[in-house]
Amino acid sequence: MEFRRIAKDPGCGARLGKIVTPHGDVRTPAFMPVGTQGTVKALLPEQIRSLEADIILGNTYHLYLRPGHRLIAALGGLHRFMNWPHPILTDSGGFQIYSLGALRRIAEEGVTFQSHIDGSTHFLSPETVVEIQETLGSDIMMCLDECIAYPATREEVERALARTARWGERCKKTHNNPEQALFGIIQGGVYPDLRRRGAEEMSSIGFDGYAIGGLSVGEPKALMLENLAATAPLLPEERPRYLMGVGTPEDLVEAVFHGIDMFDCVMPTRSARNGLLFTNGEKVVIKNARYREDGSPVDSECDCYTCQNYSRAYLRHLYVSGEILAMVLNTIHNLRHYLRLMERIREAIREGRYPDFRNRFLRERTAGAVEGGADAVTGER
Amino acid sequence: MEFRRIAKDPGCGARLGKIVTPHGDVRTPAFMPVGTQGTVKALLPEQIRSLEADIILGNTYHLYLRPGHRLIAALGGLHRFMNWPHPILTDSGGFQIYSLGALRRIAEEGVTFQSHIDGSTHFLSPETVVEIQETLGSDIMMCLDECIAYPATREEVERALARTARWGERCKKTHNNPEQALFGIIQGGVYPDLRRRGAEEMSSIGFDGYAIGGLSVGEPKALMLENLAATAPLLPEERPRYLMGVGTPEDLVEAVFHGIDMFDCVMPTRSARNGLLFTNGEKVVIKNARYREDGSPVDSECDCYTCQNYSRAYLRHLYVSGEILAMVLNTIHNLRHYLRLMERIREAIREGRYPDFRNRFLRERTAGAVEGGADAVTGER
Repeated sequence: MEFRRIAKDPGCGARLGKIVTPHGDVRTPAFMPVGTQGTVKALLPEQIRSLEADIILGNTYHLYLRPGHRLIAALGGLHRFMNWPHPILTDSGGFQIYSLGALRRIAEEGVTFQSHIDGSTHFLSPETVVEIQETLGSDIMMCLDECIAYPATREEVERALARTARWGERCKKTHNNPEQALFGIIQGGVYPDLRRRGAEEMSSIGFDGYAIGGLSVGEPKALMLENLAATAPLLPEERPRYLMGVGTPEDLVEAVFHGIDMFDCVMPTRSARNGLLFTNGEKVVIKNARYREDGSPVDSECDCYTCQNYSRAYLRHLYVSGEILAMVLNTIHNLRHYLRLMERIREAIREGRYPDFRNRFLRERTAGAVEGGADAVTGER
Repeated sequence: MEFRRIAKDPGCGARLGKIVTPHGDVRTPAFMPVGTQGTVKALLPEQIRSLEADIILGNTYHLYLRPGHRLIAALGGLHRFMNWPHPILTDSGGFQIYSLGALRRIAEEGVTFQSHIDGSTHFLSPETVVEIQETLGSDIMMCLDECIAYPATREEVERALARTARWGERCKKTHNNPEQALFGIIQGGVYPDLRRRGAEEMSSIGFDGYAIGGLSVGEPKALMLENLAATAPLLPEERPRYLMGVGTPEDLVEAVFHGIDMFDCVMPTRSARNGLLFTNGEKVVIKNARYREDGSPVDSECDCYTCQNYSRAYLRHLYVSGEILAMVLNTIHNLRHYLRLMERIREAIREGRYPDFRNRFLRERTAGAVEGGADAVTGER
């Protein structure tokens, strides 16, 4: 993997770049649609590609449990298995294991946990997590990290941070295939000095890229941004920086400002399945009665297939009727909304006007959010 | 609407033809994918079209209740609403109302029934059913008929038959828009002489096409075929003949032999969503453990997108994981299986070898069914 820095905005940390992988290039800043179980829910690979996605995310924890990484390898690897010949990043599963709560036990050697599918007991270590990802054949692999809940004491965070560093070393030692990149993960909770320490420790180990993990796990938005701002600039300039599991369009715009290059989040796809559609103005809760006879598209400024061909009234009809096509059309729209935002972000950086873009964007969105908020009050969501 | 007869097989009743509608041509014998609620479940219109479907079916009962025919008309009609610019046939809703059982009361004037959605009370008559279909703007409309359960006494069937004829006259009188065709429906239960009477009565009223209804409602297959064979040849040669709600690939092949030109059935789409996939050999119950590591396509002879790009192992993984994409890929395959069968049927008629095609097909399928039957025994479906 190679990371080419194409431009840097003179007025902030925003960077324009390109990640070159064996399965193609990734234009950064990039948003990665989430394809947890070997499918970006509801979409065909060709549809995902047509939305201008360069890379998608797969999940080690889920694929290890079902259908199994060896099965996927026997059938030609994850790209072939799911018919996506373009770049794939696999998450290590640290976050999923953390989410299991009482079903997992973390020790220095690794994590013992029970499958959410059938309750069977499994053990994953920094070594096995890298081996599984090498077996899957993803382009970018993630280290196993210890993600902890918010709130947590400084002592707890410090302990998880230290363990994440030791696990990072073990992942790096296991990493064997030069065709696959390995990213380290920075923890540190909401303690900026611990975030700094994490950034230094992981940088000194040396990875192909660096991720900021353990944010967007329940902490207030201001704390998330503060810790992001404290961490991102400390990460090596010449490597991609990935903010894991974040977030809203506003979060993305803000994080790029601080120098983040990569994102993933279930928000566009999950919201789509729940009938919540993104626009440049207020959000559209498609089941609302106000859209019953609305012949206009979800977003008249959107260039997606859904907005080009269907009315809000039709989408509402599909959604309230429980039709599968609602999931398909909504997902197309929301993902395109995110990916088009990334295009606009890249364009603004290329033209050296990112701070202005960011300020305008956040101002407009704040205005839009007030209108959108009204829907929540009526309880129609 | 115009029906052009292109060829007739010299050895049986099979006919090759073309129905010309304001929204395009329909090659017959034709299979119509079912799009009850304004969507062929799980598929985009472009996907349906790419499977070589010429026409789809919409349902008056469902669309009347939700989202409402006037709403659809206000948004440009059913074609525009659902983004399907090709021919549409709308069923009258007679069968759906019949299926409501205790929730409906049938009188000479029409049918009073309660909505399956919200329990609200509605009244549909032969006149309103035609008016609703004119409002929807379908290319082919169906008369309101009285469909009765199997088994039924001769007296019951006779009464329903007579009423269906009187309702047919009223539908015809209401029919106003020359751009839309109106088909009559032949009832008569499993009494061949009543079927004959129905065919004569409806023919003397004079419709743009004739449908055989009230079959495949629970009667033994042999009775279905006997009554089909007794009815089809009595229908006017120069009009399309439509066998409603039927059936298996074997049923289609057999019905074409007796001179049927059009079919609709939920079998390919519903089976797909239940993970039952059609092949030219045995059926594939995709969740079976035997397909866990199966790298081959569902049907190596199939030219569909699913078979060209995905393994049985991947489809099984999607299905057992409850992924929406399973519904999409399975529906593409099953519909293509049906539509490709129609292509083969038309080719056999064109080449004057339909009886031979039919005999081979039924022989092969019977052999395949025995193998397929084993799955049911293991209870793995």
